[in-house]
Amino acid sequence: MTSEDLQITQHAEHQIDNLASEKAQALAEACAAALWADDKATQSLDIHVGAIKPGACTLSMTITDNMCNGHGTCHGGYIFTLADSAFAFACNTYNQRCVAQHCTITYLNPAQTGDQLDAHACELSRQGRGGIYDIRVINQLGTAIAEFRGHSRTIKGQLLPED
Amino acid sequence: MTSEDLQITQHAEHQIDNLASEKAQALAEACAAALWADDKATQSLDIHVGAIKPGACTLSMTITDNMCNGHGTCHGGYIFTLADSAFAFACNTYNQRCVAQHCTITYLNPAQTGDQLDAHACELSRQGRGGIYDIRVINQLGTAIAEFRGHSRTIKGQLLPED
Amino acid sequence: MTSEDLQITQHAEHQIDNLASEKAQALAEACAAALWADDKATQSLDIHVGAIKPGACTLSMTITDNMCNGHGTCHGGYIFTLADSAFAFACNTYNQRCVAQHCTITYLNPAQTGDQLDAHACELSRQGRGGIYDIRVINQLGTAIAEFRGHSRTIKGQLLPED
Amino acid sequence: MTSEDLQITQHAEHQIDNLASEKAQALAEACAAALWADDKATQSLDIHVGAIKPGACTLSMTITDNMCNGHGTCHGGYIFTLADSAFAFACNTYNQRCVAQHCTITYLNPAQTGDQLDAHACELSRQGRGGIYDIRVINQLGTAIAEFRGHSRTIKGQLLPED
Repeated sequence: MTSEDLQITQHAEHQIDNLASEKAQALAEACAAALWADDKATQSLDIHVGAIKPGACTLSMTITDNMCNGHGTCHGGYIFTLADSAFAFACNTYNQRCVAQHCTITYLNPAQTGDQLDAHACELSRQGRGGIYDIRVINQLGTAIAEFRGHSRTIKGQLLPED
Repeated sequence: MTSEDLQITQHAEHQIDNLASEKAQALAEACAAALWADDKATQSLDIHVGAIKPGACTLSMTITDNMCNGHGTCHGGYIFTLADSAFAFACNTYNQRCVAQHCTITYLNPAQTGDQLDAHACELSRQGRGGIYDIRVINQLGTAIAEFRGHSRTIKGQLLPED
Repeated sequence: MTSEDLQITQHAEHQIDNLASEKAQALAEACAAALWADDKATQSLDIHVGAIKPGACTLSMTITDNMCNGHGTCHGGYIFTLADSAFAFACNTYNQRCVAQHCTITYLNPAQTGDQLDAHACELSRQGRGGIYDIRVINQLGTAIAEFRGHSRTIKGQLLPED
Repeated sequence: MTSEDLQITQHAEHQIDNLASEKAQALAEACAAALWADDKATQSLDIHVGAIKPGACTLSMTITDNMCNGHGTCHGGYIFTLADSAFAFACNTYNQRCVAQHCTITYLNPAQTGDQLDAHACELSRQGRGGIYDIRVINQLGTAIAEFRGHSRTIKGQLLPED
């Protein structure tokens, strides 16, 4: 193989990689749209999907009075719910239905009424039917509010209709 | 000490135990009332406090459409929120403010729109500033929905005003 | 059905229950013996199996110098190992091979060289291929050393040879 | 300030940053040496400290027959112990004594007799008295064996003697 052949081969491989990556990205976005359309819980909390990538996403939610106690501190359940939604969107980017099996959350700082929380989810592990996802919840100042780890399990069924 | 003296002493001790137990029960109920009055999150989800004892409680919630995805399956965040509220009510029965530090939840069976979920919280351990509480969430048929373990930490402040 | 018939039926049912219970107990003991025979790790730590019941067991271990740091405080790994062994013995009492999938441990009090630790394992949940087991580790004074929760999963294979 | 002044200032700040970083690195290494000297448990398992940085470390251990069951599969307790040691070395790099409070481990693939396991620990969060550390355990082929998350808490005392 000449040096020129090698370059052409590498260029072709690079194009194939890009194509695969674009296809995975398109699938992730289509899955998120399908998940969102069905998810009244996430919709009714005004959770916004900021970014989606295969195995990862960012979701945002603004803390309202009804999510708080009398002192304006957010109930841990709503912080968990935001993180859990981010977990669900991240693990369902492969068009294979996934459900939460086991989750842990550690609370680092309180959130207040009016805070805008971002939940950043990324994939730590995916093997067989199981996956592990880490979600960090931060407020509008970048202060860490909670660290969440979710264990997912695939179930039968796909998110998107077959072509 | 005669046998009669012993009986009188035992009877007196029993009365003191009962008195202490009644006082602890009254304190637990007063704390729950104070916690509830401040907790818009728990109120707005129509969570009912069924029973309160020192270190323990039962809370109930009915699953609504807005807590579900399009298939009528409850979002894990709301199951967590019910369990987390039960955890909060159980660990705050001693008039010493407690907050959640770390929680784990395992999902066992899905909950559906219309299900009435009960969360039973009991104390596993309380030592120094830390406590561990186990919460089982079941539906109206007694089917286990989730197992939750919460780690609490006392903070400054009391729930009830000083006399 | 006469009242006498009813009594005979109840008596027969009671005998069947007892028989089933005795069979389950014999199976649990046979599984524990098979597990022990293969488990060099548990053997080499001089872990003793104190009691076995379907879904439950008690294991004991004495803390040696080699399990400790220079101050005589036991390494958390050995406390975990005792609890994890108890978890394994408890979830493998049904002659269906089970492995640990996910475990959590909370340390409550330090253990010292010479302490005799007991790990009491009991079953919280068993459904489909998954099980949840709670293990409490206490020392010879009854002081709680750690609380452990283990999630098991059945795999192919049995512990005992077919008859 | 002239452009030359700015460059000198930036250069000085860069030198100060480097100095602080070198000091933190020296402290981390001194703490690891002090921790190791006292830790018979880690020593007796032939655990090697491969790398130390502030809040991070890599530890290695070879699986022996005595860590396994009869089929040559490593007991989960020893995988946990390696990860827990890495956690301890990582959170004790600031010369402030830290202990494990709560740990979770997820087993991904079995380890075998003769495997060399590496545990890579890094700091996720450190705030007030609490810290969170993530530890990944891999084998000599790079296969993930377990994911561990440890929650630490500072206690009184330092690792190094005062000058």
